[in-house]
Amino acid sequence: MQLPQRVRDYFAELQRAICTALEARDSRGRFREDSWQYAPESGQTGGGGGVSRVLTRGDTFEKAGVNIAHVRGELNERLAARLEVEPQPFEASGISLVIHPLSPHVPTVHMNLRFLELRDRAWFGGGADLTPYYLYHEDAAHFHLTLRDACNLHDPAGYARYKRACDEYFYLRHRQETRGVGGIFFDYLSGNLEAHFAFVQEVGQAFLPAYLPIVDRRRNEPWWDRERAWQLLRRGRYVEFNLIYDRGTLFGLETQGRTESILMSLPPLVRWDYDHRPEPGSPEAELVEVLRRPREWI
Amino acid sequence: MQLPQRVRDYFAELQRAICTALEARDSRGRFREDSWQYAPESGQTGGGGGVSRVLTRGDTFEKAGVNIAHVRGELNERLAARLEVEPQPFEASGISLVIHPLSPHVPTVHMNLRFLELRDRAWFGGGADLTPYYLYHEDAAHFHLTLRDACNLHDPAGYARYKRACDEYFYLRHRQETRGVGGIFFDYLSGNLEAHFAFVQEVGQAFLPAYLPIVDRRRNEPWWDRERAWQLLRRGRYVEFNLIYDRGTLFGLETQGRTESILMSLPPLVRWDYDHRPEPGSPEAELVEVLRRPREWI
Repeated sequence: MQLPQRVRDYFAELQRAICTALEARDSRGRFREDSWQYAPESGQTGGGGGVSRVLTRGDTFEKAGVNIAHVRGELNERLAARLEVEPQPFEASGISLVIHPLSPHVPTVHMNLRFLELRDRAWFGGGADLTPYYLYHEDAAHFHLTLRDACNLHDPAGYARYKRACDEYFYLRHRQETRGVGGIFFDYLSGNLEAHFAFVQEVGQAFLPAYLPIVDRRRNEPWWDRERAWQLLRRGRYVEFNLIYDRGTLFGLETQGRTESILMSLPPLVRWDYDHRPEPGSPEAELVEVLRRPREWI
Repeated sequence: MQLPQRVRDYFAELQRAICTALEARDSRGRFREDSWQYAPESGQTGGGGGVSRVLTRGDTFEKAGVNIAHVRGELNERLAARLEVEPQPFEASGISLVIHPLSPHVPTVHMNLRFLELRDRAWFGGGADLTPYYLYHEDAAHFHLTLRDACNLHDPAGYARYKRACDEYFYLRHRQETRGVGGIFFDYLSGNLEAHFAFVQEVGQAFLPAYLPIVDRRRNEPWWDRERAWQLLRRGRYVEFNLIYDRGTLFGLETQGRTESILMSLPPLVRWDYDHRPEPGSPEAELVEVLRRPREWI
């Protein structure tokens, strides 16, 4: 079988595995599945579609969206300029997920793996990053360690590079904060595509072992209004990042992707309080300090 | 006195008048005032600052922000390209307000009036628009009529043009919806600046008579969870517009403005529900229909 097809099959299989594992940790939430067709701008050729699976109002996960897509279309001038190529047809497949847990002690997580084909270039990109509301050093370290092990199987220098890229990418310039405690982020992996695909699969396989132990460790810790309010406030930063900076979101909206599947990354409930400042020395202030100065977790 | 100083004095006076009138309609909320200095990017010249006045957790207004600013700085390449000029120093003054009422029956409102000076060009811009959660035809008509009267004093053809520009500007392409029922929007009013300033003052004076009667009419109507949930969901669209499309927000963030003053436009509490569709024939569905096909209100 050709590589592009194997990539798509893998993303579909990964979606199933992740949804099954998440449902097993939620006594109330079940994934709803929507298949959708891609309808490019009028006058442009294109097609394909995707499958969105979304769980809402669970008792562990307030909202979890796991999306796969495979679309063919044409890069418009703006997108082509951003990729530094001529306007031309493209083909893109990917899996993308964002999980917003109910408990403020359980971090939000995001993963994206994608394969983009242009006329005479193709590459993999993706990453995974963790956004806690309260900082547990051992959780951040576990997440990074698991991803580092996946990187090491292919390139011992990979993790350090992808970790730095993650801190740089998930950065809110207007807040001077990273979105969370990072993870890995990579893009434009071209050349030996088979080797890169093997790496992408390692990352995909590392996702559940990187995240689920944290969920299991934290989901039963008690929390009150204060922790919940802080979680909703920090979710506002998540929205700001995704709508102002995130390339995937903007690419999706720009190429007339399915809005509900693109914006399923947004948290279910969010607050914006004017000029909120956490009390010095509080756990909330401690988190913000770490977001201002990215750390080595391993 | 020179025009730029009179413009700034007017914006300051308008801020006071609006805040006083809003406080009079809220038995709990009071405006808090923050003065701030503008700190341009390192290596760039600039200065100035502003005064943000924010009321939160009122019983009529859940959040109301009224901001004035006067900043001097340098256009970076990206902003200069957007204005189709060379990078150069700029000077900008403005008043900007967004009011998020507590009741889903009272619409959110926004107004912005601004004066921008470049090396050899200066212009006024601004507008006001209404974002209801439930549609009351007479409220939308009253808002438009009051603004039309203000336009007519200066240019009988102005309202029709600015009304259309408002529908075009406050448009969420990815939702294929306008942000609300519109109002007026104008930009690049240059040439006879004294005449344009007189017009801008008319718009400023029209704001309270356009909005307050609607507040008074609706604020005591009862509402329940369903109306509240719909309001929070629609506020999500407000966030999407402001962070993805709004030029003022992006200009502010791009020029390193004071983040809290720029983002005070964001609603206090917001929901995103995956693929929510209002029941056909419901008041919620009626609103969405109007947002899909902008109407004449007069």
